Amino acid sequence: MRIERERLERYRHLKREFREDKCINLNPIQRGGVLTPEAREALLEFGDGYSTCDWCPPKTARLDKIERPPIADFYEDLAKFLGMDVARVVTRCREAKFIAFRMLGEPGDYVVVDSLAHYSTYIAAELARLRVKEVPNSGHPEFRVDLDAYAEKTEEVRRETGKPPALVVLTHVDSYYGNMNDARRVAEIAHEHGVPFLLNAAYTAGVMPVDGKELGADIIVSSGHKSWAASAPTGILAMTSEMAERILRPSSIKGDLSERSFGVKELALLGCTVMGAPLLSLMASFPHVVKRVENWPEEVEKARWLVGQLERIEGTRQLGVRPKEHTLIHIESEGFFRVSQTHRRRGFFLYEELRERGIVGIQPGLTKHFKLNTYGLPWEKVRTVAEAFLEIAKRHRLSVG
Amino acid sequence: MRIERERLERYRHLKREFREDKCINLNPIQRGGVLTPEAREALLEFGDGYSTCDWCPPKTARLDKIERPPIADFYEDLAKFLGMDVARVVTRCREAKFIAFRMLGEPGDYVVVDSLAHYSTYIAAELARLRVKEVPNSGHPEFRVDLDAYAEKTEEVRRETGKPPALVVLTHVDSYYGNMNDARRVAEIAHEHGVPFLLNAAYTAGVMPVDGKELGADIIVSSGHKSWAASAPTGILAMTSEMAERILRPSSIKGDLSERSFGVKELALLGCTVMGAPLLSLMASFPHVVKRVENWPEEVEKARWLVGQLERIEGTRQLGVRPKEHTLIHIESEGFFRVSQTHRRRGFFLYEELRERGIVGIQPGLTKHFKLNTYGLPWEKVRTVAEAFLEIAKRHRLSVG
Repeated sequence: MRIERERLERYRHLKREFREDKCINLNPIQRGGVLTPEAREALLEFGDGYSTCDWCPPKTARLDKIERPPIADFYEDLAKFLGMDVARVVTRCREAKFIAFRMLGEPGDYVVVDSLAHYSTYIAAELARLRVKEVPNSGHPEFRVDLDAYAEKTEEVRRETGKPPALVVLTHVDSYYGNMNDARRVAEIAHEHGVPFLLNAAYTAGVMPVDGKELGADIIVSSGHKSWAASAPTGILAMTSEMAERILRPSSIKGDLSERSFGVKELALLGCTVMGAPLLSLMASFPHVVKRVENWPEEVEKARWLVGQLERIEGTRQLGVRPKEHTLIHIESEGFFRVSQTHRRRGFFLYEELRERGIVGIQPGLTKHFKLNTYGLPWEKVRTVAEAFLEIAKRHRLSVG
Repeated sequence: MRIERERLERYRHLKREFREDKCINLNPIQRGGVLTPEAREALLEFGDGYSTCDWCPPKTARLDKIERPPIADFYEDLAKFLGMDVARVVTRCREAKFIAFRMLGEPGDYVVVDSLAHYSTYIAAELARLRVKEVPNSGHPEFRVDLDAYAEKTEEVRRETGKPPALVVLTHVDSYYGNMNDARRVAEIAHEHGVPFLLNAAYTAGVMPVDGKELGADIIVSSGHKSWAASAPTGILAMTSEMAERILRPSSIKGDLSERSFGVKELALLGCTVMGAPLLSLMASFPHVVKRVENWPEEVEKARWLVGQLERIEGTRQLGVRPKEHTLIHIESEGFFRVSQTHRRRGFFLYEELRERGIVGIQPGLTKHFKLNTYGLPWEKVRTVAEAFLEIAKRHRLSVG
């Protein structure tokens, strides 16, 4: 039970090497989660344990009922911003998916998902005791999801099980190629088949305008720490009123002796969810987020410009649908890969030479395929990134067009 | 979709009225969650979204494998500190319970729980599709859980269902009366019946020494924001190796078309859990927590002294087992209740008069029964609390012995 003193001391002053003020970080999962100054203030103000719960109303004791700080209002505004009726902040986007799956499905039911869904979509289904049926994509180099196949797959489930799938799930923008999918098309198919449609907007809501009503979504899930300038862990679960009745169903368990029951608590939320600092960081960044989504066209422009620069390098091209409609970029580089094969540091040279130039976030060791994200970087830093790649290419005698 | 500007502006600068430096906060759920200065530093350093994931190892991509910051080491030390083999930080103590229930039980199985269990224990069972069988307590005024009845209830489950319960659960210290239960006794009974024993240490681990091995726990759950000087949401799930094999079972779902599988991910954790600031706050406070549990006897002494002072007030007594073995105190006051019946502010007078003296955390409106917690308050502040109550009593002509 005794822990060595030196080991303990290491935990006291935890430092981050890649702090936003110290480098240009291209990590694909991190660009949308950089805090606003307001969020940083909120973290300190509400850092202490259960400090959001000072004014929890005794009779309806639930996070979403708290008015000081204005959590109840925020949930309303959050729903409105996403064009939905009801919103809750949960611990992660993956938990939001699990909650929807658990409450809308029975063990053994299917969810139909795109084959580029994040791993957590599959695991959330598994934890809810559901099965997945995948919708194919076109493979290399576009990896375009075949949206029309949602109809066929939904019917396949019906033939196989005698009932429709519990949900149809679409990843709005996937985490591999940053491809944008037409949510309206999938919503139509889902509704023709009478199946609720869940849109995973982890990479879209919070960085670009997403209106669930317009897109026909019954449920939108998103990630606060990925795309809403919030601290982890924060997930967003927004729904139509109809879905909210099923997904936010109150607890109905009863103590067999005590007859205690907890009808005021939302079952799948286990009562309360993010009762602390990350929720407050999400709230504090919200005014900024509402505004920043309007800048989306320029964010895409920066990504396209960078792709153009990188593709000047011999044997280098962007994978996924062209031109980019999102800031998450997947690069395939036969050129850098060739360099890695004779370099003494193998594939690590690229990471290391970028790092010398103050650029991080490309996965160490990768050259043939790597991902990056330009979201929120000012033009000046995007230019620095382009120059760094071009310099490294030239240094290793790759031709630059 | 448009949100009024004034509404938005309110979220920008969120302030907390009851900050620790502004008042004496007796809120029973908050005393153990006050941050250390080191935790506050960590919040800022790792506030940005996925900032803990800078060094996520690509091949074993999982939070518990990260070495910079030293999360992997911390999980080892956390397990060691609790006398267990394996530990994970999850989003809440209630999620830790859900994870254990989901992975150890099949739909319809029972968990045997004490009848003073927190509501989230019941709901976690419900979400895992389990049922509860309650162990009685002695009722007013002691509310002592009948630990020997665990045997009878476990057998009752076996008679009713033909198999033992999935788990036996004991709330180490309950949230209503702050009664301490003898975990060893329940561990013995559980093991005699071959049932895993889960100890809910939300109010004990992190504030007092808890050694799972010594107590015979197979699983310990606790709450970082309640008792470990950490930000919400953080839960602790610590286990024996044997339990870890079942509870941390990897995902086995497979894409039907893509054949994608995710064997590296822990199913019930949905891959990763608290990938951000609250986890880092827990780590930064850990050296302090390891040390502070040694001061537990003095913390109990302060609670007992305060009970003695409050009981000087006419018609006032402590409920639950006597003398106190924990700092969470439940007071029954016929005296204050009598005052409330003719006071123009009804039951609110007590809250308001305490607040005028800089003391908060007693639930507004309550006089006949209210709870408070003295954990971590210096003697001087405990004395201030006692004086305030005595003054208020005298002011309303209650006799003070």
